[in-house]
Amino acid sequence: MPVQTASRVAALKNIATRLRIDSVRSTSEAGSGHPSTCASAAEIVAALFFSEMRYDPRDPKNPDNDRFVLSKGHAAPILYAVWAEAGIVTREDTLTLRKFDSDLEGHPTPRLPWVDVATGSLGQGLCAGIGIALNARRIGSEYRTYVLMGDGETAEGSVWESAHVAAHHKLDNLVGITDVNALGQAGPTQWQHDMDAYAVKWHAFGWHAVIVDGHDVPALLDALEEARRTKGRPTMILAKTIKGKGIASIEGKNGWHGKPLKKGEEMQRALEELQRQFVAEDEPAPKPEAPRSTSRKDPAGPITLDPPSYKLGDSIATREAYGEALAKLGAKDARIVALDADVKNSTFSDKFEARVGSERFYENFIAEQVMIGAAMGLAARGAIPFPSTFAAFLTRAYDFIRMAAISGLNIKMAGSHAGVSIGEDGPSQMALEDLAMMRAQPNIAVLYPCDAVSTERLLEKMANHKGPMYMRTSRPKTPVIYGPDERFEIGGLKVLRESAGDAATVIGAGITVVEAMKAYEELKAKGTAIRVVDLYSLQPIDAATLLRCATETRGRVITVEDHYAGGGIGDAVASAIAPGGFTVHRLAVREIPRSGQPDELVDHYGISARHIVNAVTERARVS
Amino acid sequence: MPVQTASRVAALKNIATRLRIDSVRSTSEAGSGHPSTCASAAEIVAALFFSEMRYDPRDPKNPDNDRFVLSKGHAAPILYAVWAEAGIVTREDTLTLRKFDSDLEGHPTPRLPWVDVATGSLGQGLCAGIGIALNARRIGSEYRTYVLMGDGETAEGSVWESAHVAAHHKLDNLVGITDVNALGQAGPTQWQHDMDAYAVKWHAFGWHAVIVDGHDVPALLDALEEARRTKGRPTMILAKTIKGKGIASIEGKNGWHGKPLKKGEEMQRALEELQRQFVAEDEPAPKPEAPRSTSRKDPAGPITLDPPSYKLGDSIATREAYGEALAKLGAKDARIVALDADVKNSTFSDKFEARVGSERFYENFIAEQVMIGAAMGLAARGAIPFPSTFAAFLTRAYDFIRMAAISGLNIKMAGSHAGVSIGEDGPSQMALEDLAMMRAQPNIAVLYPCDAVSTERLLEKMANHKGPMYMRTSRPKTPVIYGPDERFEIGGLKVLRESAGDAATVIGAGITVVEAMKAYEELKAKGTAIRVVDLYSLQPIDAATLLRCATETRGRVITVEDHYAGGGIGDAVASAIAPGGFTVHRLAVREIPRSGQPDELVDHYGISARHIVNAVTERARVS
Repeated sequence: MPVQTASRVAALKNIATRLRIDSVRSTSEAGSGHPSTCASAAEIVAALFFSEMRYDPRDPKNPDNDRFVLSKGHAAPILYAVWAEAGIVTREDTLTLRKFDSDLEGHPTPRLPWVDVATGSLGQGLCAGIGIALNARRIGSEYRTYVLMGDGETAEGSVWESAHVAAHHKLDNLVGITDVNALGQAGPTQWQHDMDAYAVKWHAFGWHAVIVDGHDVPALLDALEEARRTKGRPTMILAKTIKGKGIASIEGKNGWHGKPLKKGEEMQRALEELQRQFVAEDEPAPKPEAPRSTSRKDPAGPITLDPPSYKLGDSIATREAYGEALAKLGAKDARIVALDADVKNSTFSDKFEARVGSERFYENFIAEQVMIGAAMGLAARGAIPFPSTFAAFLTRAYDFIRMAAISGLNIKMAGSHAGVSIGEDGPSQMALEDLAMMRAQPNIAVLYPCDAVSTERLLEKMANHKGPMYMRTSRPKTPVIYGPDERFEIGGLKVLRESAGDAATVIGAGITVVEAMKAYEELKAKGTAIRVVDLYSLQPIDAATLLRCATETRGRVITVEDHYAGGGIGDAVASAIAPGGFTVHRLAVREIPRSGQPDELVDHYGISARHIVNAVTERARVS
Repeated sequence: MPVQTASRVAALKNIATRLRIDSVRSTSEAGSGHPSTCASAAEIVAALFFSEMRYDPRDPKNPDNDRFVLSKGHAAPILYAVWAEAGIVTREDTLTLRKFDSDLEGHPTPRLPWVDVATGSLGQGLCAGIGIALNARRIGSEYRTYVLMGDGETAEGSVWESAHVAAHHKLDNLVGITDVNALGQAGPTQWQHDMDAYAVKWHAFGWHAVIVDGHDVPALLDALEEARRTKGRPTMILAKTIKGKGIASIEGKNGWHGKPLKKGEEMQRALEELQRQFVAEDEPAPKPEAPRSTSRKDPAGPITLDPPSYKLGDSIATREAYGEALAKLGAKDARIVALDADVKNSTFSDKFEARVGSERFYENFIAEQVMIGAAMGLAARGAIPFPSTFAAFLTRAYDFIRMAAISGLNIKMAGSHAGVSIGEDGPSQMALEDLAMMRAQPNIAVLYPCDAVSTERLLEKMANHKGPMYMRTSRPKTPVIYGPDERFEIGGLKVLRESAGDAATVIGAGITVVEAMKAYEELKAKGTAIRVVDLYSLQPIDAATLLRCATETRGRVITVEDHYAGGGIGDAVASAIAPGGFTVHRLAVREIPRSGQPDELVDHYGISARHIVNAVTERARVS
C-alpha cells in the first residue's frame, strides 16, 4: 500500500498536470482528438498508474501486471501521455498521435502491447474487464483490473449486462471508475452530475459504489484502497469531474467534445495556464511498483485430441458434436474456457461444464454482449475462450465481434441453430445472416462443418490457431460422412464426389452438403454425374480447388446454402472464382421465412436436393 | 374502470384456466413449443386482455387500441389462446400452431394484424414498447402500452437501455410486467424469485415498481390500476409466478422449458387437472371495453419536398445533406420522427430537432438498441421513424435490425461516418461492414448516395416507400454532381459517363463515385474512355442496366467501395450480373485499417482513383 503522504499527493497532482499538457499538445498537433475528455480524467489516471496499479513498465505481457482498460477510448491521448510519463514511449512519440505511421491511433488498439482490447465503441470496456478479471482467477494471479468509463457510455445496455455478470461472479478484483464529467458528445449526459443516480444503480446491481471528487487525489487514493479492501463484489468508483478541467476556456463547456485547441495562440494559452498549476513537490515522481504475485504458468504448445469416436453413418447434430469436442478440448488444456448465455443445453456447451466443471465455464444468463466482451478479455490474457449461443443471437453482439476483429483477439465463437432447418420455432430463432456478418470481417475465420467428425477436427484446429474465428453448427442430425482420421484445415474444403464427366460443381456446407449428396444420387440414377464440394471453410477459402472444379465442370457452379443470398456461401465462392471468369448460380433463402417442419422449409425456400437437381438439369442461370 | 367484484375475478380465473388448456393443447398438437412458459403468465394475460386493456377486437388497426407486446415471444401459444377467447381466431385455429400454412408461428410476427413487432429475440419488447408509447403522445391518444417480459430476459442490456429511456421520457402510459417464474431455458434465472432484486433495479432506473403474486387475480388488477394512477414515470409490475403453474407434473420444475406435454395420456392428464380448476362464476365472461379516446388523424398520402437548393459544384457532406433533408421532411409531415443516440451534431439530425422541435425528436443517449427498438414501435403505429447514428454503431443494434426485417417494419435507418474516409478517428469509428449487414436482410433497401442532391431525393423516396430501409452517408464533403430536378429511384442507378468505346465499367457509390470520376478524367487524358456508374441503390439493384453496361464493356466490370470486400458493392454487383456470365474485379478494403488522413487511407487501402486507373489499365483480374 502506498503511504498517502502530502508529498505523494503533490507528485500525483503534478503528474495529472503533465498528462493534461501532453493531451493538449498531442491533439493540437494532430488537429483532432478529445483533450477535454482527457482533462476530466487526469487525476484518476495519475492515481491509478502511479500509485494504485502494480506492473512492470518494461514488460507489458507480464501475466501478473495489473490491467487497465480505457473503455472511454476517445481519451486515448491521456493513455499515451501516461506511457510517456512511465517511460514506455517518449514525449515526442505522443506527438505522432493519429498519424498514419504511428501506432498511437485515434482510439487505442492492441497494435500497442499495453492495450488488451480495442476501445472506441463505448460501453464495451467493462465487459472485457470481466474477462480479464476472470482470467486472474483462472491462472491464480492477484492482478487487479481497472476499467475507466465515461458517464455517457453507462447508457449502453452492455454496461448493465456487465454490472450483473460481474456481481454474479463476485469479481472483487475488478474496479470500474466512471469519469462523470456530465457532458456527452451532443449535450449533457443522461444523469449529468446527479451522483446518487449512478450510485443507486450500481448498488442495485450488487456492486460496492463510492462517490468521490474526481479531481481530489487523496479522495481517489482512498476510494481505490476501499475497493481493494472490498471482498465478494466489484467496486464502482463514481468520480465527479469537470470536462476540460484545468483549461478555463473549455472547462465544463458544451461544444468541446472531440475538439482540439488550435495550434498556436489558443494552445499556448492553455499550456501556460496548465504550467501555472504545478505545485511544489519534495520527492521524485513515484514509480510503479512490481506485480503483486506470480501466477501459475499456462500450458504452452498445441492441443491434440484423440480421434473422434463417431462411426460412418451415425446420425448426430453438429451442435452436439461441438459440445462433445469442446468438452474434450477443455479436459486437455487449462487455457480452454467456455461461455454461455442460457442456452448451454441447446448448444451442448453443457457437456463442457459437465466434464470440466464450473471453474472454467462462465454463465452470462441471457446477455450475449457481455458473453462476447468477457471472451475478448479472457483471450487478451491468454485463455482460449469459446463463447456460444444460437447463431441468430450473435447478431446481438455484432459490435463486440467487430471490435474483437479490430483487436485481432483469439476468440472462438460458435453459433448453433443456423438457418431454416431449425423448423418450427420460426424466423426469430433462425440465423440467416451470420455468415455475412462474420465473413464481412476480413480477419475472422468462418467454418461450417456438415458432420460430427469435421466439427470435432475443426474445433481442434480453432483451438490451435490464433485469431478470431467462428463456427456455425446446425440443429438437425446429419450423417457422419468422414472417417476418424480425415484431416481438415482452416482454409480447406473436401471434394466429396468427382469424375471426369461432371456436369456441374455443387458447393454446399452444413446441412446443404446432405442435400447435395441426395441430389448426386438422384442425378446419378438418371445418368448425370456432378461434383460435390463440402465448403467447410468459407474464410479463408480454397480458391485454387474451387477454380479447378469450375474449370473442370466448364464453369457450371451451383452454391446452395441455408442462409440468405447476400454475403454467404454464394458470394464467397463467386469472389473466389471470379479471377477465372466463372460465375455462380446461387441457391439461397431469398425472403423472410416462417415456421414449419425443417424438411418442408428447406424445400420451400429452394435449398433442397430437388432444387439442386433442377438447377443442374434445367441449366437455368440465376444469380 | 372495471368493478373488481368477486364474480369478475372468478370469470378471469376461468379465462386463465382456459388459456392454459389451449396452450397445452396447441403445443401438444404441434409437438413443440413452450406450455410451461404460457402457464406462468395465464392470470397476467387474462387480467390484461379481459379487464385492463381497452380495444376493439374486430379492429386490430384502430389507432386508439391499447397495445400489448409479448416480449417473451416463446409464450406465443397463450397469445393465440387469448385471441381465441376474444373471438379473434377460433379455438380450432390455435391447433394450427407452428404449421407451415398457419400464421400462428412459433413466435409472433406481424403477419398477424394484432402483432406490432416480431418477438422471440429476448429483451426487445420493452424497447418497442417505448416507441409505441411515444406514438400515443405523437397522435394525442390515451391508449396505453403493456409489455410482458420474462425474468430471464431482463439480463439483456437492452432492457436497461429501455428502463433508462422510458424514465427519461416520463412514459406513464407504458407498463411493463415481468413474469418472474425464476426458470430460464438452461436453469434458474439470474435473480430467481428474489423479487426485491428486481424492484430495487427498476426503482434505481426511475420506474414505479410493484411486486405482486402473479397468480392472484385481484392483486394483478390492483397493480394495473396503480400503474394507471401513477403519473410522470412508467410502471413495472413484478409478478412472482411458477413456471408450469396448474400442471403438477411440470410446476416449478427445471427441464420443462420449450417442451410440450406428449399428445395422448400425458396431455390428457394435464387437461383433466386443469379442468378441475374451473371455479363457479355467476356472470358471463367479461368482454373488452372500447378504446379510451379518439386521437388526431395522421396525415395521409405522399410527402413531397421542394427541389434541393444545392448548386452543381457545391461541396457538402452527404451526412449534412441527410440532416437538412430530414428537417425538410419533418417540417412537412407529422408522421416523420427522428431518433438519436448522442451524435446528432455529427449525423446532423440536430437540424431536424432545430427545425421541428423536440416533440418529435427522441434522444436515446448512447444506447443504439433502444433507439432502433423504439423506432420499430413507432413504425408499427404509423409514424415514419428515422433513427441515425454512426454506421459503425448500428452494428450494436443488429439483432434489432434483424427483427425489424422479420417484422417488415417501416423504419428508415441512417448511418454516417462510413468507411476509412473518416480518417484519424481510426477503425472503431469506421463502418466497413454495414452494407454487408444490411444487404444480408432480403427486405431491407440499401441506399448510398454520393452527393447532397441524391441524398435529399433518396430520403424523400425513403419516407414515401413502406418497409425497412437504410441510407449510408459519408463524413467528407463531396461535390454536388446532380441538378435539383434529377430523379432517383429505390432500385435505380446513374450512368454518369458513357461512350461506345468504354474500356471498362467502373461502379462506385458514395465517396468512391468521386474517385471513379477522377479516374475517368485521368484515363480520358490518356485516351481511354471508361463507363462510370453511381450505384446509389445496392438493394434492390438495377441488374438490367448493370448487365447492359457489362455487355457493352465486354465484361470488364470494376467495383470500388469504402467497405470490406465481403458482402458489399462488389458482391451485390457480382450477383446481379452473374446471369450474363460476367464477373467483377473488386476494389475494397481487405484488412483492418488504422488511423490516418482520409485521402491517405483511401489510397492506402486500395480504393482511390489511382487504383481504379491501375485496374483499368493493367487489365488485372483479381476477385
